[in-house]
Amino acid sequence: MKTADRMQGVHRSYIREILKVTARPEIISFAGGLPHPDSFPAQQVAEAAACVFAEEGASALQYSTTEGYEPLRAWIAQRYERQGLTVDPDDILITTGSQQALDMAGRALLNRGEPMVIERPGYLGAIQCFSMYGVEFKTVDLLPTGVDVDQLDRVLAETGARCFYAVPSFQNPSGISYDEPTRRAVAEVLGRRNCLLIEDNPYGELRFMGEDVLPVRCFMQSPSILLGSFSKMVAPGMRLGWIYAPDGLMDSLVRAKQACDLHTSTLTQRILYRYLRDNDVDSHISSIRERYKLHRDLMVAAIAEHFPAEVTTTDPEGGMFLWCSLPEFVSAEAVFQEAIRNEVAFVPGKPFYVDGTDNTFRLNFSNASPDRIEEGIARLGRCLHDCLASSKGRG
Amino acid sequence: MKTADRMQGVHRSYIREILKVTARPEIISFAGGLPHPDSFPAQQVAEAAACVFAEEGASALQYSTTEGYEPLRAWIAQRYERQGLTVDPDDILITTGSQQALDMAGRALLNRGEPMVIERPGYLGAIQCFSMYGVEFKTVDLLPTGVDVDQLDRVLAETGARCFYAVPSFQNPSGISYDEPTRRAVAEVLGRRNCLLIEDNPYGELRFMGEDVLPVRCFMQSPSILLGSFSKMVAPGMRLGWIYAPDGLMDSLVRAKQACDLHTSTLTQRILYRYLRDNDVDSHISSIRERYKLHRDLMVAAIAEHFPAEVTTTDPEGGMFLWCSLPEFVSAEAVFQEAIRNEVAFVPGKPFYVDGTDNTFRLNFSNASPDRIEEGIARLGRCLHDCLASSKGRG
Repeated sequence: MKTADRMQGVHRSYIREILKVTARPEIISFAGGLPHPDSFPAQQVAEAAACVFAEEGASALQYSTTEGYEPLRAWIAQRYERQGLTVDPDDILITTGSQQALDMAGRALLNRGEPMVIERPGYLGAIQCFSMYGVEFKTVDLLPTGVDVDQLDRVLAETGARCFYAVPSFQNPSGISYDEPTRRAVAEVLGRRNCLLIEDNPYGELRFMGEDVLPVRCFMQSPSILLGSFSKMVAPGMRLGWIYAPDGLMDSLVRAKQACDLHTSTLTQRILYRYLRDNDVDSHISSIRERYKLHRDLMVAAIAEHFPAEVTTTDPEGGMFLWCSLPEFVSAEAVFQEAIRNEVAFVPGKPFYVDGTDNTFRLNFSNASPDRIEEGIARLGRCLHDCLASSKGRG
Repeated sequence: MKTADRMQGVHRSYIREILKVTARPEIISFAGGLPHPDSFPAQQVAEAAACVFAEEGASALQYSTTEGYEPLRAWIAQRYERQGLTVDPDDILITTGSQQALDMAGRALLNRGEPMVIERPGYLGAIQCFSMYGVEFKTVDLLPTGVDVDQLDRVLAETGARCFYAVPSFQNPSGISYDEPTRRAVAEVLGRRNCLLIEDNPYGELRFMGEDVLPVRCFMQSPSILLGSFSKMVAPGMRLGWIYAPDGLMDSLVRAKQACDLHTSTLTQRILYRYLRDNDVDSHISSIRERYKLHRDLMVAAIAEHFPAEVTTTDPEGGMFLWCSLPEFVSAEAVFQEAIRNEVAFVPGKPFYVDGTDNTFRLNFSNASPDRIEEGIARLGRCLHDCLASSKGRG
């Protein structure tokens, strides 16, 4: 049986395959994008589940609406008020994690062969997902302050692309967050060029340094959709995310979701809502921020001590990732092989590009424990020194 | 923002829209495809959840593999042994209900513009889902013994279709189950015509009369995939189903699933597995069968008493649905309007056809309580008598 043509450009996720290699406990892994398990409010979620079973019984196990559990949608809508957004719960669609939100957006909005703009580097899960809808990727470079707005304007003018996908806060893979002037400028350019924004914001709540910045959506005068996730602020294993889609886009998204899986789990939606209702979520998020800041600071300090000066890194103020750039003549995949031999792992940057760039890599700082971060970065530093020396020798 | 071209043929599910109309409590509804809530093992699932939280803690809330929770896949694989199938757990992919299994099959295997064969009438969720992949539907009639095999052979010969989607056991919407000779003959035709079978089996465990029959898969010498669901044997709100895909098809399905939502909820998979491991599932399923047989018998008896003789019905030995055929000159949609005025509801047959046929309708017997079944069928009988009389008057 031949598979469908749309599958030809879609590879198994590089990261998920790497995770199989790095599952050996002796390997210190900075590869996955996993939250730290100690950050999950497991006890409180257990209590929420017990309440749901005791009080809601069979209705928590029955089919429910495609749009999602209304109190959960209302909770999400209300939380947007902090950002000055007035959101109707009916403009929220609950999805099976924000990966499914990407898929619904792709399905409802993207046509085969049409150009679509993404960041460079870009989130590989989005590249993988949108590839299946046959779009033609156009990329715009990320600067330390966010996407290169002049380049964005040029690319939109040249290609006529009608959709821009971005992760403006603590981007995966780079850790870069757009500053406010960049956000305003992006909103202006997209409005002028009549281009829809798909704004993916799974890490927005995880700021541990600097000033909070509003979603780009807050500055938009033209249509956009905004994706969110409970994976990083509560736990990813429930697979709960959402799309906020005003501007007349919800109907198509709901139809796409119906055809896809009817609806997301009634049970997990009700458990999550109960958890959110009965607990101090902000205090929980503060504790995650503290933890991740500690991890990030340890990693940054260890990098300063152990990495060769030629390896540069981003300086994230939140999220879960640091991004490292090697001299052009060094292959991150070659470093990866050496690193695995030395029992430390990361994700080579290649799958985050559509052009094959191979001299960058991603480090996750949320999942490994503090002592493993220090030891792992020391190991990786030795690998980098060796690889740079041998690359220079060959060069 | 224009939506994607693929959305144009995809309507909101007719049934899910009808369910909104029929949500008024005074309406007796035979419209939905909902299991009876008293059939959910809510207490046992609650206990399973408590064990998962107590013993598995954070790992039940973390990201997990795309393929699904291994012990759950092993449980499914082992259950197939009863049907003489030797199944490798690695050939099982856990999905968000069997609707997502359809979507993954469509995504991984179907090309735009290619012919695909479905039953007539066919499951509307499949029509909706596969429409999005742009296939060209070819239909084969259902007879009381199953699909018309000679017609299937002819359609395959004429169209060169390489995929046949079927619900051979207690089909939705018709309630028809293929007998064994038909299953063997289908397997032979598909093998000879080099056509993949997508066999959807959400109701297979719900036989309450007659002899068990093996899945068509058991008779196949050529590639096929077999879909299953926990929605009817445990509870639909957990959204857990699966694809059994040997024959080298799993890799594409896993890639499709990764791009779609990374994986199905870790939490619900572990709760369900715990429930299955710690309880007598067969005894639970027996109790569902008894309940549904009672409902079905009541409905059949009420129909015999109240429906006009010109309305014929199928005689299901399991599942959740009865299928009614009106004289050709009577529109089921007109009957539906009259029925709603009389506070009883069903699903008109039109969305189960790709050719607009409008003189059939579906009755669900699992969800309504016994006394509501008798009263609802009596009301519906009066509507049918009125509609037939007025249609004859006009004819």
